[in-house]
Amino acid sequence: MNSPDETITLISAGKVQGTPVLDPEGRTLGEIYDVMLEKRTGRIAYAVMSFGGVLGIGKKYHPLPWAALKYVPDAGGYMIGIPKDDLEKGPTIENTATPWENGMAEAIEKHYRGWLPAA
Amino acid sequence: MNSPDETITLISAGKVQGTPVLDPEGRTLGEIYDVMLEKRTGRIAYAVMSFGGVLGIGKKYHPLPWAALKYVPDAGGYMIGIPKDDLEKGPTIENTATPWENGMAEAIEKHYRGWLPAA
Repeated sequence: MNSPDETITLISAGKVQGTPVLDPEGRTLGEIYDVMLEKRTGRIAYAVMSFGGVLGIGKKYHPLPWAALKYVPDAGGYMIGIPKDDLEKGPTIENTATPWENGMAEAIEKHYRGWLPAA
Repeated sequence: MNSPDETITLISAGKVQGTPVLDPEGRTLGEIYDVMLEKRTGRIAYAVMSFGGVLGIGKKYHPLPWAALKYVPDAGGYMIGIPKDDLEKGPTIENTATPWENGMAEAIEKHYRGWLPAA
């Protein structure tokens, strides 16, 4: 597919999917598995990072606030300033439908509030 | 992948991609190729429908307002009330980076305003 999937202000979901997520030292934490969208409002609810068991976090899916993802071209990935400990304690998505609903967006916002850039 | 990709209020970009787009009579117009996201605001800028040459529209990519997509479970796709004539006259994305930038979101909004559900 040769259509452009990124501009200065826009990016396609397809380009976000699979992009590495790195810690501030440039180590790979995982990658963006998908982006969850609010059907009614057209807002991004959150991004979902998947781990391949790197750093011992295991094979969970970690929802992250969109605003926590800062793309660093030289690093080729999204660099996040969230410490590993805080990620491990954050909301996770297991193999069940329940956690995706029921205030997940609010739980993510609350847990990661301190690591988000100032609005 | 066995994690849920849709809830009552949320849907993953991965589930939107590839979903058929149908006219009000249930005929396939094309499918959702991707979803363009505003990096800074976290909003969906627009969805991109791809045509496989069905109905003679050709192999262009048509950006559509997110709000124009209404999922109809029985039909298994997004049903849009936009007439084919109006789709053909709408903004299209060719094989170049230019049209994605430079007010594309505004052009989409303006062209399809009359076909969007009341806010």
